[in-house]
Amino acid sequence: MSAQTLDQLPTPCLLVDQERTRANIDRMDLQLGQLQVPLRPHLKTCKNIDIARQMLDAHPGAATVSTLAEADYFFGHGIKDLLYAVGIAPGKLQAVAERRAAGMHLSIILDSLAAATAVTAAARRLDCAYRVLLEVDADGHRAGFRADDPDLENSARMLADGGCEVAGIMVHAGGSYACQQTEAIADMAATERMAALSAATRLREIGLEAPVVSVGSTPTATFSRNLDGVTEVRAGVYVFQDLVMAGLGVCRDEDIALSVLTEVIGHRVQSGQVVIDAGWMALSRDRGTAGQARDRGYGLVRDVDGRDLGEVVVQATNQEHGILAHADGTPLSAEEFPVGRRLRILPNHACATAGQHGGYWLIEDGAVQRWLERCQGW
Amino acid sequence: MSAQTLDQLPTPCLLVDQERTRANIDRMDLQLGQLQVPLRPHLKTCKNIDIARQMLDAHPGAATVSTLAEADYFFGHGIKDLLYAVGIAPGKLQAVAERRAAGMHLSIILDSLAAATAVTAAARRLDCAYRVLLEVDADGHRAGFRADDPDLENSARMLADGGCEVAGIMVHAGGSYACQQTEAIADMAATERMAALSAATRLREIGLEAPVVSVGSTPTATFSRNLDGVTEVRAGVYVFQDLVMAGLGVCRDEDIALSVLTEVIGHRVQSGQVVIDAGWMALSRDRGTAGQARDRGYGLVRDVDGRDLGEVVVQATNQEHGILAHADGTPLSAEEFPVGRRLRILPNHACATAGQHGGYWLIEDGAVQRWLERCQGW
Repeated sequence: MSAQTLDQLPTPCLLVDQERTRANIDRMDLQLGQLQVPLRPHLKTCKNIDIARQMLDAHPGAATVSTLAEADYFFGHGIKDLLYAVGIAPGKLQAVAERRAAGMHLSIILDSLAAATAVTAAARRLDCAYRVLLEVDADGHRAGFRADDPDLENSARMLADGGCEVAGIMVHAGGSYACQQTEAIADMAATERMAALSAATRLREIGLEAPVVSVGSTPTATFSRNLDGVTEVRAGVYVFQDLVMAGLGVCRDEDIALSVLTEVIGHRVQSGQVVIDAGWMALSRDRGTAGQARDRGYGLVRDVDGRDLGEVVVQATNQEHGILAHADGTPLSAEEFPVGRRLRILPNHACATAGQHGGYWLIEDGAVQRWLERCQGW
Repeated sequence: MSAQTLDQLPTPCLLVDQERTRANIDRMDLQLGQLQVPLRPHLKTCKNIDIARQMLDAHPGAATVSTLAEADYFFGHGIKDLLYAVGIAPGKLQAVAERRAAGMHLSIILDSLAAATAVTAAARRLDCAYRVLLEVDADGHRAGFRADDPDLENSARMLADGGCEVAGIMVHAGGSYACQQTEAIADMAATERMAALSAATRLREIGLEAPVVSVGSTPTATFSRNLDGVTEVRAGVYVFQDLVMAGLGVCRDEDIALSVLTEVIGHRVQSGQVVIDAGWMALSRDRGTAGQARDRGYGLVRDVDGRDLGEVVVQATNQEHGILAHADGTPLSAEEFPVGRRLRILPNHACATAGQHGGYWLIEDGAVQRWLERCQGW
């Protein structure tokens, strides 16, 4: 697709602001540089090689992915060291073996003896020395061996005896997304680190080297005070930031690099609402700010150049319609938001909103530069 | 992609049950046959030509779409009469003119004098006789001229004077999705019809023919008792049905033709929960059953062949993780849901879940038949 202006792009479409993206990357690199730990960027947010290369500038070579489709896409673009950071499904073990045989340095994770048994059996059957991290739970959020589960050691032993490489420990403190205070996030970062270190110690006590201690999320990476003993940090959403991160104090609204370009198509005069051509298909159904101090609806409204319009939010969505309203109930006027006016919507959750689009337009110095594809599917 | 078995398909992926799809289509065709009104199927749910052709079997030629990308895709497959049923954005008028010039019989809708002004100006500038339906609001749900708004006639006159074809009226009673009783849906269908008829009468009183009276949604189409005066019904989600429709009494759980195939990847033993490899990226963030009598979480769990497993639901999601729990709190056992077991998840909202996927696998007689692409983007 050829470059156009913001007034010409078909709406709805996704925009990425290059300057904000670069500043977000630099900020995270500075933070982790101070803590002297390399980043293994999570590429599930960007799903694009040009953005990924910027994320990898200061940390060459190693990345995290959430699907095998991402692994294939980024491997095809020369990124060889990839951590697939979702508990491995036995049905995917053949696909993993094929990728390792093809030269992809692909690591997997698991958090149960049952999964370790499946991996060990596949290692034998397919003659594949899987590289495995054991996932440990720090906060009861999602997955991971519990801190006191003897199956952590049992699984590690089984894998090592079965010819797999037990690379170490990974922890994801996803509970940090629910913190109310940055102090609480810093505490959770400490908890995440301690859970990882203590599990790594348990592996080392049974004679395994376990060189990798991998932790992270954008909130905990941002507010970590100490990462001694941690060998890599994973974070992804920091590259674009979003309203959920702003609500956590991880960034400001004006750091958010991702937005959906939309156009006003009508008004609900009696209720002082404005109708736009971006619904949940373009914005996603994510309501991640609903539980935060400031509920931003389905997204925060900015002008076509990204400038502040006050607390105007997308209050409701249908498949291809969005309904705008002022958060404080002040009616919006048809004069301020005429039919045909273009706006940008900042997303609640960058991963979810970006996931609704096949690609984005890169915006630099306010001008549309080029189309960047996004890897899709599984 | 070649045909495989349900045990071999990469997870997560989307499945369409051919027999259920056919039965859903037949049921709607029977209902509208009895009411003697043709269907103009809405193709925003299926976004695929093979499914669309089945929907159009009994109503050849005319369809509804929610994006210009759908219009292009279906026109490319020979469907020429297309209603783009989202209030037209002025920025899309050149694209609409180009499509009409290329032979697409594309109709647009609008609901304000401002939009009519933009359409009339574009008609002159681009020498395009836009075919326009005026959208009328029946229930305060989303968009449409209010019943008493003189701008309905003013817009119609302006369009006709400007060389456009004022084809008639369209109403969408989206509020029917919030009804608690089928009786209330039948009443809303009557309201939808009356709003359309009364607006059409107003256009005819000012000398316009207004031949089209278009109404519809899957709930109102299903429970309409009388469609006299209506010339076409629009409905889309009926083709697959979903848990929201089941909650409205529009279908039964066992009529739902769409599901997401997933695999168990772990357990949260203390809380009796099961972790699967389908998160909100595969299921969507839609929580449409949250406000219904039975909240189905992010979807209802079935076995790999679609059979009942009781009220087990996807209670929580991350990007690529789903957490299963029994709705009544009964702990799920790792024995019943072992790592590696495959399951199907029935969706809250077929349009939203299908929208997360680039295509689906057609299942017939329990076997995987072939991959069907889905049109994407805008």
